[in-house]
Amino acid sequence: MSAYHSLVNQFARLHKLSHASTFLSWDQQVMMPPGGAEGRAQALAELHQIHHELLTAEYLGDWFEGALQEGLSEDQQANLREMHRLWQQATCLQGDLVQAQSLAASRCEHAWREQRGNNDWAGFLPNFKEVVRLAREEAQARQAAAEGDFATPYDALLDLYSSGDTSASIAEVFDGLKAQLPGLIDEVIERQRRTPNVDLSGHYNIQEQQRLSHSVMEVLGFDFSKGRLDISSHPFSTGVRGDHRITTRYRESDFIEALMGTVHETGHASYEAGLPEAWAGQPAGEARSMSIHESQSLLFEKQLLLSKPFVRFLTPIIHQHFPTLKEVDHDQFWQAMSRVHRGFIRVEADEVTYPMHIVLRYEIESALINGEMEAEDIPDAWADKMQAYLGLDTHGNYKDGCLQDIHWPSGAFGYFPSYTLGALNAAQLFSAMHRDLPALDAHLREGNVSSLRQWLGSRIWSKGSFLSSKELITQATGEATNPDYFIRHIRNRYLDM
Amino acid sequence: MSAYHSLVNQFARLHKLSHASTFLSWDQQVMMPPGGAEGRAQALAELHQIHHELLTAEYLGDWFEGALQEGLSEDQQANLREMHRLWQQATCLQGDLVQAQSLAASRCEHAWREQRGNNDWAGFLPNFKEVVRLAREEAQARQAAAEGDFATPYDALLDLYSSGDTSASIAEVFDGLKAQLPGLIDEVIERQRRTPNVDLSGHYNIQEQQRLSHSVMEVLGFDFSKGRLDISSHPFSTGVRGDHRITTRYRESDFIEALMGTVHETGHASYEAGLPEAWAGQPAGEARSMSIHESQSLLFEKQLLLSKPFVRFLTPIIHQHFPTLKEVDHDQFWQAMSRVHRGFIRVEADEVTYPMHIVLRYEIESALINGEMEAEDIPDAWADKMQAYLGLDTHGNYKDGCLQDIHWPSGAFGYFPSYTLGALNAAQLFSAMHRDLPALDAHLREGNVSSLRQWLGSRIWSKGSFLSSKELITQATGEATNPDYFIRHIRNRYLDM
Repeated sequence: MSAYHSLVNQFARLHKLSHASTFLSWDQQVMMPPGGAEGRAQALAELHQIHHELLTAEYLGDWFEGALQEGLSEDQQANLREMHRLWQQATCLQGDLVQAQSLAASRCEHAWREQRGNNDWAGFLPNFKEVVRLAREEAQARQAAAEGDFATPYDALLDLYSSGDTSASIAEVFDGLKAQLPGLIDEVIERQRRTPNVDLSGHYNIQEQQRLSHSVMEVLGFDFSKGRLDISSHPFSTGVRGDHRITTRYRESDFIEALMGTVHETGHASYEAGLPEAWAGQPAGEARSMSIHESQSLLFEKQLLLSKPFVRFLTPIIHQHFPTLKEVDHDQFWQAMSRVHRGFIRVEADEVTYPMHIVLRYEIESALINGEMEAEDIPDAWADKMQAYLGLDTHGNYKDGCLQDIHWPSGAFGYFPSYTLGALNAAQLFSAMHRDLPALDAHLREGNVSSLRQWLGSRIWSKGSFLSSKELITQATGEATNPDYFIRHIRNRYLDM
Repeated sequence: MSAYHSLVNQFARLHKLSHASTFLSWDQQVMMPPGGAEGRAQALAELHQIHHELLTAEYLGDWFEGALQEGLSEDQQANLREMHRLWQQATCLQGDLVQAQSLAASRCEHAWREQRGNNDWAGFLPNFKEVVRLAREEAQARQAAAEGDFATPYDALLDLYSSGDTSASIAEVFDGLKAQLPGLIDEVIERQRRTPNVDLSGHYNIQEQQRLSHSVMEVLGFDFSKGRLDISSHPFSTGVRGDHRITTRYRESDFIEALMGTVHETGHASYEAGLPEAWAGQPAGEARSMSIHESQSLLFEKQLLLSKPFVRFLTPIIHQHFPTLKEVDHDQFWQAMSRVHRGFIRVEADEVTYPMHIVLRYEIESALINGEMEAEDIPDAWADKMQAYLGLDTHGNYKDGCLQDIHWPSGAFGYFPSYTLGALNAAQLFSAMHRDLPALDAHLREGNVSSLRQWLGSRIWSKGSFLSSKELITQATGEATNPDYFIRHIRNRYLDM
């Protein structure tokens, strides 16, 4: 067997092990009773261990060398490149660093769950300093192993989530946002102050909400013979080709939150379902990156669901499920779903203010990992930036400030930018789609998303990881990620400009 | 590390891999959409392969030799013995035989699914002859590898399901049944002809049936923080310590079938939950055998649930869930749940006729595997025995005769006896329990099963695989499996003798 085909077989095995971990994790979050936690953690750790052994086996080094001599097709070369990236990510760290990180992160995250509620920054800091120290060590080791691929240590961590996004490209994009968005937020809030606030508070039966979610997912092209919708405390999307599992949570007092969550996860699942069939189980057949993944979920949630034509289509469906709302018309639903306000909490933020939460985190975490800031300095930096970007005071309020997210306590640095890169890509893709599909709004008004799915399918989903994220966005839209589309989208939607 | 402890670690790893397969299979049967089938089959095959590699690794042979020199405790010796049994079962077959069996069985089973409906014995026979040929080869190889442990090739297959049960011991027990049961069946049916038939046919809401199942499981001591009840097309019980999953199926026209199924599976799950904590994940900590497992499920379903004191307790609970039945008293429920009739189909048989279905299958499959009968001869043997044991004519009716079960087409020989050994052990255990616990009936009448659970827990569940099944039953009841307890149980229950 050629070296390349030996690698293909090895990565097919790795994929099957990931399949197992994927559904065991889904079960853990959706089905498992509390008594199962201990055994499940051990089983997952064992699978993780076997996966790691297969991915870091010494003979892979020889196969990678051999494969370079084998005259591969362009697609095979792309697959080889992705395999090599995963292999390098897995082999470049010493085992004792990985173990120390795992321990430090679980200690810090575990304590954080209480400290956050108690606003206890002083208690949190010592654990967190250790997490940061080890994350810096990891970033430096990854940077060194990549021999010049990464301009800063932080870039090496970014690559774990959003291969192809660099701090240089992010800084440029985020500078564009910083220049325009804070002023725009003022304008939007000022404008909304003059429009009536539609109050949809009420009692919405959860089974009926589930039926509504189900209907909307079918409209959006989700195939229930190849997936499920369930309930979990944090909505997520997971699965494999042919079996896409998404979850939502429901509150009786509000049906919009669950609906938006469902549509968001349907975007993620649609991307996964549209990945290139022929490359299933191979690295080149996987989704490109978190910033592309998030562009699909946000395109579904923010660009599509909240578009006026689609809300118009949706209104009679909502009426059907919740007849008490039949006096609420599509304009009023749209207004209720599009309220903007400044808040402390990222996960509760609307699409207009959300990017500023991310810019703030990006600036802090990149400085932290690159050694330009210390953990002690985070609260002040947070308060200053929160004041500058959103006009909110978080001095002494760690709970609703720098202690609010799980990412840092659990050692995940480099993940945050993908949320906002995703939002910007979504706006840019939706704009390009409108240019290519003049009838799109008319289709959406009829609940017909087939041209939208086809456009995304051919330009994004079917491309797997064959292109870099920059190439992917450029080929689909004509240019690299440019914040102007997002800014224009906000102006159009909220200021009718 | 000592050789014994190396083995302990290896079997702990195997247990974690089994954990993964267990829940992926549960998901497959309970949750998975059809689109997931292909990927799931591949992932399970990969886990199976890794499990097989770890269980048959050459170094285990050295460890087994080494461990024999290490002065182990009695418990450790028992664990070593069970490890060795599993290792020998896994290593004694050639890989090409295993592969040929897997192919032949899936071809035969796949075709059988249609042939059964078409009563197509002639179409079935060629595939099945190949399955039998390979099963004989397997049985002979297993017998040879065990160097005198098994008196016949069939005994080597029995050992896969019910370690400790032999054809000699089974023949003796089954001869006792053959001598007494057919006459008893006549008497019971004659007696029931004289009592009024209670008709419970009606419409029973499935959610309400689920609530009833849930309530009864709680009464029986099932801990829902360590398990779940779900729906599947074939009821089963699976899981691990701390996470016991049982399933039931519901029909709207009948609530008794689901209730009995739920209680049956609760018996299985109770056994698993009561296995020795300190030996979790080790072979000595596993359930002893299928014939002991089935004794627990049948003790719950047939001895406990159908006992008059428990039906008395249950009656107001049934009334609560199904108020339309409030005119039906406990005697009438008991009668409705205890109807006996001769039928063709094993899985629909009541406890009185069921053993004769098994004796018939046991006689045929043991002769088949030991080369004393050919596959061609099965229909005639079946018809003769069916006539002799149950007075029913199956000539030419393969569908309701020898084609009815999945076991043989899928290559499972040696499994059937455990159903009836389980029923006999259940009767014997329930009798011994009554001897030890004079207040048992009074407790059951109050829905109090704690003394019953304690008795089973200390005598059966907590013993794991430390004893042979014969030792286990002997220590718990004072003698080895003896069909007289079952016969007496039938006389008591159905003839008031």
